Amino acid sequence: MAGEALKIYGDRRSQPTRAILLFCKVNGIEFEEVTIVLFSGAAQTHEYQAINPTKKVPAIAHGDFTLFESHAILIYLASTYQVPDHWYPADLRKRAKLHSVLDWHHTNLRLGSVGYLTNTILMSLFGKTPNPERAAESEQTLASSFSTIETVWLKDDAKFLLGNDKPSIADLALVSEIMQFHMLGDEEMNRLIGAYKKVKKWIENVKNATNPHFDQVHQHLFDFIANFKNKA
Amino acid sequence: MAGEALKIYGDRRSQPTRAILLFCKVNGIEFEEVTIVLFSGAAQTHEYQAINPTKKVPAIAHGDFTLFESHAILIYLASTYQVPDHWYPADLRKRAKLHSVLDWHHTNLRLGSVGYLTNTILMSLFGKTPNPERAAESEQTLASSFSTIETVWLKDDAKFLLGNDKPSIADLALVSEIMQFHMLGDEEMNRLIGAYKKVKKWIENVKNATNPHFDQVHQHLFDFIANFKNKA
Repeated sequence: MAGEALKIYGDRRSQPTRAILLFCKVNGIEFEEVTIVLFSGAAQTHEYQAINPTKKVPAIAHGDFTLFESHAILIYLASTYQVPDHWYPADLRKRAKLHSVLDWHHTNLRLGSVGYLTNTILMSLFGKTPNPERAAESEQTLASSFSTIETVWLKDDAKFLLGNDKPSIADLALVSEIMQFHMLGDEEMNRLIGAYKKVKKWIENVKNATNPHFDQVHQHLFDFIANFKNKA
Repeated sequence: MAGEALKIYGDRRSQPTRAILLFCKVNGIEFEEVTIVLFSGAAQTHEYQAINPTKKVPAIAHGDFTLFESHAILIYLASTYQVPDHWYPADLRKRAKLHSVLDWHHTNLRLGSVGYLTNTILMSLFGKTPNPERAAESEQTLASSFSTIETVWLKDDAKFLLGNDKPSIADLALVSEIMQFHMLGDEEMNRLIGAYKKVKKWIENVKNATNPHFDQVHQHLFDFIANFKNKA
């Protein structure tokens, strides 16, 4: 099964797309990257809907098997290819804790992140009026999420989530999410995250553990940010 | 590991609590139910925060192992106890599709359900003013979610999600979520869900496959609904 052709459909400006690309690059998994440009209509074609009927990115095709939802994809790839156990542990209790972080991500960090970015910079980019009430609400969700990462998921002085000394797929998913805040500029990003010392250290740990791939996978986002700042 | 004492912390008025109780009852898994009454402060105690630091229900303790997030719990229990394969298939591709449904649930059906119920009946119950704009937005998320269940997750004429002839943990999670709409009354529930014929049939299939446990686990919700309707 691992020998079948793997295609990854996504846009590097999408947080979960980057998490999957990063996982594959770090683990030497060969794939073809098919760019589905966000907001271009590319996700609305019949061809793409056969891959992902919900018309979102990312998705994969592995031989004739298709899959969407980034956490499900990361788990599938970690289970199908020969990768070190720390990415997705075989031990049932370690694995359960990892699922717990991934589930928590959906309704906490991810929810706050998408809500905040949509109701600040993204609405502005699309010429729409941001909703300050929604932005404030999302900022509360974000603050609560960063606090939970700092006090619950980053245990003691461990380098990675769940007290681990090596990264898991959850580290990739959550840090890829947080990197999106670079869209807001350094000052704003520091306002949101500056108080969380362990979170900041952990982000550096994930970068260091996955470079040069981390920087390479994020370059397109940084180019995009530089481009819209030049225009503004 | 399966022989250790299992405690389930929750409130039967909580959708994900019911999914876990139902899974255990259907599979003859012994457990002690510890009721953490919602909105009572019971989830705020130091004792409970040692089980679930995010102060939500449900959670479990299995021996000295604790876990929260209902999907993670369902997967852990299905992996730890000897239960039939259809609940959480060992086949990597079947399992991946199941993860995809569960991930999708968080940011679609669950998001719409919680948003809609909060901004209609729940705000009213707590003497607060519901937000009609938010209710309308959540109703759109719900309509889109029911449409996806009808056209993507319920394939052809299969009885259960993903074209299966037997239920999985995803069937329990999603149907437990939808049962919460009984809070709105028959007319309103029919307005929201009436057009989705396959969804309605599937709910009946899940009830039939899991009764008498399904009705028993939902009785507390129905008693609660009858009680607040009498008061209103």
